[in-house]
Amino acid sequence: MVGYAFMGAAHSQAWRTVNRVFDLPARASMVAVCGRDAARVAEAAARLGWAEAVTDWRELIARDDIDVIDVCTPGDSHAEIAIAALEAGKHVLCEKPLANTVDEARAMVAAAAKARAAGVRSACGFNYRRVPAVSLMRNMVAAGRLGAIRHVRAVYLQDWIVDPSFPLVWRLQKEKAGSGALGDIGAHIIDLTQFVTGQRITGVSGLTETFIKERPLPSSSTGLSASATSGPAATGEVTVDDAALFIARLDGGAVATYEATRFATGRKNGLRVEVNGEHGSLAFDLERLNELEFFDATRPAAEQGWSRILVTEGEHPYLGAWWPPGHIIGYEHSFTHEMRDFIEAVATGADPTPSFEDALQVQLVLDAVARSDSSWISVAS
Amino acid sequence: MVGYAFMGAAHSQAWRTVNRVFDLPARASMVAVCGRDAARVAEAAARLGWAEAVTDWRELIARDDIDVIDVCTPGDSHAEIAIAALEAGKHVLCEKPLANTVDEARAMVAAAAKARAAGVRSACGFNYRRVPAVSLMRNMVAAGRLGAIRHVRAVYLQDWIVDPSFPLVWRLQKEKAGSGALGDIGAHIIDLTQFVTGQRITGVSGLTETFIKERPLPSSSTGLSASATSGPAATGEVTVDDAALFIARLDGGAVATYEATRFATGRKNGLRVEVNGEHGSLAFDLERLNELEFFDATRPAAEQGWSRILVTEGEHPYLGAWWPPGHIIGYEHSFTHEMRDFIEAVATGADPTPSFEDALQVQLVLDAVARSDSSWISVAS
Amino acid sequence: MVGYAFMGAAHSQAWRTVNRVFDLPARASMVAVCGRDAARVAEAAARLGWAEAVTDWRELIARDDIDVIDVCTPGDSHAEIAIAALEAGKHVLCEKPLANTVDEARAMVAAAAKARAAGVRSACGFNYRRVPAVSLMRNMVAAGRLGAIRHVRAVYLQDWIVDPSFPLVWRLQKEKAGSGALGDIGAHIIDLTQFVTGQRITGVSGLTETFIKERPLPSSSTGLSASATSGPAATGEVTVDDAALFIARLDGGAVATYEATRFATGRKNGLRVEVNGEHGSLAFDLERLNELEFFDATRPAAEQGWSRILVTEGEHPYLGAWWPPGHIIGYEHSFTHEMRDFIEAVATGADPTPSFEDALQVQLVLDAVARSDSSWISVAS
Amino acid sequence: MVGYAFMGAAHSQAWRTVNRVFDLPARASMVAVCGRDAARVAEAAARLGWAEAVTDWRELIARDDIDVIDVCTPGDSHAEIAIAALEAGKHVLCEKPLANTVDEARAMVAAAAKARAAGVRSACGFNYRRVPAVSLMRNMVAAGRLGAIRHVRAVYLQDWIVDPSFPLVWRLQKEKAGSGALGDIGAHIIDLTQFVTGQRITGVSGLTETFIKERPLPSSSTGLSASATSGPAATGEVTVDDAALFIARLDGGAVATYEATRFATGRKNGLRVEVNGEHGSLAFDLERLNELEFFDATRPAAEQGWSRILVTEGEHPYLGAWWPPGHIIGYEHSFTHEMRDFIEAVATGADPTPSFEDALQVQLVLDAVARSDSSWISVAS
Repeated sequence: MVGYAFMGAAHSQAWRTVNRVFDLPARASMVAVCGRDAARVAEAAARLGWAEAVTDWRELIARDDIDVIDVCTPGDSHAEIAIAALEAGKHVLCEKPLANTVDEARAMVAAAAKARAAGVRSACGFNYRRVPAVSLMRNMVAAGRLGAIRHVRAVYLQDWIVDPSFPLVWRLQKEKAGSGALGDIGAHIIDLTQFVTGQRITGVSGLTETFIKERPLPSSSTGLSASATSGPAATGEVTVDDAALFIARLDGGAVATYEATRFATGRKNGLRVEVNGEHGSLAFDLERLNELEFFDATRPAAEQGWSRILVTEGEHPYLGAWWPPGHIIGYEHSFTHEMRDFIEAVATGADPTPSFEDALQVQLVLDAVARSDSSWISVAS
Repeated sequence: MVGYAFMGAAHSQAWRTVNRVFDLPARASMVAVCGRDAARVAEAAARLGWAEAVTDWRELIARDDIDVIDVCTPGDSHAEIAIAALEAGKHVLCEKPLANTVDEARAMVAAAAKARAAGVRSACGFNYRRVPAVSLMRNMVAAGRLGAIRHVRAVYLQDWIVDPSFPLVWRLQKEKAGSGALGDIGAHIIDLTQFVTGQRITGVSGLTETFIKERPLPSSSTGLSASATSGPAATGEVTVDDAALFIARLDGGAVATYEATRFATGRKNGLRVEVNGEHGSLAFDLERLNELEFFDATRPAAEQGWSRILVTEGEHPYLGAWWPPGHIIGYEHSFTHEMRDFIEAVATGADPTPSFEDALQVQLVLDAVARSDSSWISVAS
Repeated sequence: MVGYAFMGAAHSQAWRTVNRVFDLPARASMVAVCGRDAARVAEAAARLGWAEAVTDWRELIARDDIDVIDVCTPGDSHAEIAIAALEAGKHVLCEKPLANTVDEARAMVAAAAKARAAGVRSACGFNYRRVPAVSLMRNMVAAGRLGAIRHVRAVYLQDWIVDPSFPLVWRLQKEKAGSGALGDIGAHIIDLTQFVTGQRITGVSGLTETFIKERPLPSSSTGLSASATSGPAATGEVTVDDAALFIARLDGGAVATYEATRFATGRKNGLRVEVNGEHGSLAFDLERLNELEFFDATRPAAEQGWSRILVTEGEHPYLGAWWPPGHIIGYEHSFTHEMRDFIEAVATGADPTPSFEDALQVQLVLDAVARSDSSWISVAS
Repeated sequence: MVGYAFMGAAHSQAWRTVNRVFDLPARASMVAVCGRDAARVAEAAARLGWAEAVTDWRELIARDDIDVIDVCTPGDSHAEIAIAALEAGKHVLCEKPLANTVDEARAMVAAAAKARAAGVRSACGFNYRRVPAVSLMRNMVAAGRLGAIRHVRAVYLQDWIVDPSFPLVWRLQKEKAGSGALGDIGAHIIDLTQFVTGQRITGVSGLTETFIKERPLPSSSTGLSASATSGPAATGEVTVDDAALFIARLDGGAVATYEATRFATGRKNGLRVEVNGEHGSLAFDLERLNELEFFDATRPAAEQGWSRILVTEGEHPYLGAWWPPGHIIGYEHSFTHEMRDFIEAVATGADPTPSFEDALQVQLVLDAVARSDSSWISVAS
């Protein structure tokens, strides 16, 4: 694994757990973790359960006892690491978004295609596909329970930078993060809605906004949390969006609204997706990820209603391996399920999903939204 | 009152009730109702409680014993009736949307301005402003409880024409209705969000869609319900939108998403508005109109949460006149409150709200959305 | 109508509205209202829409132009008025609880039986039976959708006297009110659960509690609201229960818990009933009275969930006469429906429900709870 | 660890994770697991991450390299194992309920007291105390946010044996399980409410019911799931309660209702607790364990409401060690927190909670409920 911050911790919990819960054709060994700071990566290895710590990711790629490279770094290094690993014959699991630019993403897709011919596998880590309620949602749409899809509405609402004194962490810098809310959380709802509906976005019209344009420089930057320097604060420019909103058309005829923001006060991890079809509707909320709302318009009229399906039963995706009925799971389980599916695919010679190509499509949508900011009709007065 | 269908019935219930519940400086007398079909309007008068029935609205305007004209007809006749009434010195309450076109709306604004100089009052019936929870929402924003507004998200979701065999009623015909979901229910969320935030929409980018382009001709058409003709059905073209989606910028710096649709299966009267500000957020849902959700970010961090305020108490707008704590009111009460405010304004020589000018602003937004349909960025492949 | 406070206002709104909304075989005329204070009853008549005001209820009973007596006084005068009215051949609608004692209730049942032989009708006003969601709940249980009933859990939670300085209004005095939370709101959940399940309570074990035993004397007492006297307050003893809790067995084999309290801080009108059966469950909450929750255990396992049925459609009880889909109604509509059913029954020569005998059964349960306070097992130490 | 079924799997996940997430003064080593069937316990050890498997728990107690015994067996063997372990100087963590009888529980308390004098620690595993929202609830009550407590209402609703063909597993047999819903899930709500309020139950009046008295014998019995034998089924008697209901008084003046059942169709793991106090109320639902509902009656009247606190933030108990804001945790995390607190207490020489004495108090309440079944008042007819 390369990187050991927020995503590294989540992936480690998943790698430690996956074979304890699921019966799989292969067993994961946590061989080594890589980071630039020797002391800190050693500490992380001990805490997270990795046998070794190294400071150069090329070292991991060169080793014979490593089969899989798990890329958990910021987006600006994804392409370099992933392409090198694939060329070295390592299976690659790469965190989302696939890359910071469309060009990098295209290069990664090319590398993945070449590697695949040699039996080397790759996938991008859109972990929310593996939330059981989301998997169930996909299965129900695919089974035709909703009929033709008319509407998609998707938001990913957070509020962690509402305070103007929150410092200029790497996620607010374009050269590191590529974009702001758009690529970080907007990417999730683009992938999720395309996955659930089986339709691809063909056109968009959108806007992005940066509400707070200057922020204090951080004394140190560690993932999502950071403290501002004391003293008369040096400030720097915020070079990414705080919020991105767009409307879209999908290739199956649906129309959609999307919103990704870090300024929705009171919404902490508010990913919500609703899909309306001819025969019914489905709705999901990540803050209540064990539930799926279903409206079945084929039921008798007087009994129709939105059902809260508690997705915790043995009949539901992934859950037969966990706890008895009604015992809920958490955010981290989505990664355990991701590793479950990745291990199974690699061990059986199948392609894990989503592919790098699927992830490139998300990148193309992000790019179109970023370019659409000028399409605008003034309200007359 | 001119017109006696859905809106006429709702207004009648309000006129009958308003002086029974509220202490007001004037008392409403239900003098006469007007409709084109003599037999049907007579029946309506008897049922709804109007003393007389007439078949020509000009007759109402000519009478000395009538002070107020309440316009409840489809949008295509609003301008003619309202302007004539104002010129005759009658106070006018006109249902929304103000008119079917911007030009008609401008003419109505001009007539209202002229009448106002003579002490004649006019207002447009955006009744949802008078839902107590919406009034409270406005009061809290105006009092600065949210600080600067960052986001508005508003949807008005219905599903009454999802079935392709639902007939081509007047609300699906452009010449009668002006537009479809956009003007009928989109107008409500435009007015509501501008009212609550105190900000006006300055620019939009949107799309409209008609999913079902041909429908059976109705055997008879009565408001929202109708039955198709039997036999090999004659069909006609749907000339209005089924759904309208747009993003917007407001003049106070907020960004917004809007969606109005009659194809959101399972959503019956799903008007939902959320406003996020620096210091807090508010959310409202018309299907639970006695509740207001409030997130107060100034509370101690460990106790912050979305509060469900049950807006049924004596401390809340309009409710001191109704029932004890916790006893909920319904949809129709918004009209009783509308009449309460209209009577009070007219009786005390004040201008009732929203004015025709406020309603023209809504019309201008509708017009901009309709014109924006071509602003579109393709997703590359 | 006798009495014109909270219940009088609610009944008046219903009598004014019922024939405006429903097509019925008879039309209600609001002939006269009775109260002891001539000036106040005259004011009430004018405000509420009664043609005349009188100060002696015997006068109403003596008149030939009055067919129905609607009893809206406190419980201590129900028996005298209702029995006299029945003996005079007037149909009687009597507010709940039927009486303050079992003996009075038995006398009323006897009078009703005698009157019925002469075609004179009587009913007790348990209005919550007429909330459409409750009617639907009853219909679904009666249709066997739940199978054998296992559990009932019912609470009626209010908080209007949590403050110890709230004064000693008549509802807190045994001689006027008979009992406290038990008879006032406990009676509602006893009737409601017996109505919905079609089962009668056969045995109970309960407790009652008075948390605040002394309160300031009121300067004036008007229904649910009152203000304490100023100055060094005289206080008086609270002679009724603040809360009553009991468990019960029903004659169809179900077991049940009940709780009625005026000390549930934050619960304003929190009547909630849940019924669990072999094949499904239903749940209702009066603060969201337009909704019914339904769990259908006969659905495919992976799709089972609690459905929120929005009980606002033409297919639902009473609602075809009101507004389009999704437009909610309020508390007061339960009375309009009560009057609708009462008028229809009386006009067609049928017995309205619930009968005085049904209401006596509620009284017997209240009496058993009041007597059960001593059945108690200490926890060993 | 002794036992490796449902509780054994949950505890193993917690022991594996606790030092990966929390910084603690000691590190848990998973030395050995014990079970009666050699092959199955070896398989469990490999899967769950225990270094060794043994078939006699006495072997564990005899070893010098083991400091802690974690008892995860059915209740009938708790006393023997725990007492022997304590006498051997091992710290003991024992699953709930502490024992199947009051006498066994008293013996365990005596053994714990004796061991404690020698620095040997013991605790009972009421894991729900460690759900962050429950810890927060306790902290808020202890800080006086609710003032005097008036009401407690607690239910634990499940439905896994509603089907009469569900077989006679060990949890339905008195000699193994001691009691049914009462001891299995009723024990949880008794402990939880006493913990949260800081009050103890002093008296009860209750009932128990067994709806299905005969069930098919299981072909094999494994924890909560089992399949019935095929062929003309042999049946056996259900010797425990399906449901237990009781009302109670607490020593601080509160009154309470309790219900534990396995027959609440549609409720999967429905542990709900509400506490009403003078100044506010709190409510918790295990199916949404990341949320706490709070009503603060000291807020301005027009803004009071039930707040949904999303208990996922760094300010909340235990959560600083987990994920960013709004990222929810699951059922199993309550065990990780239990182990965290147990390790810290043992390592620092403090007493972990709840003590065996706390758990005995729960047993005494269970015993009183079981004895109270005859206290009953008939409803007169």
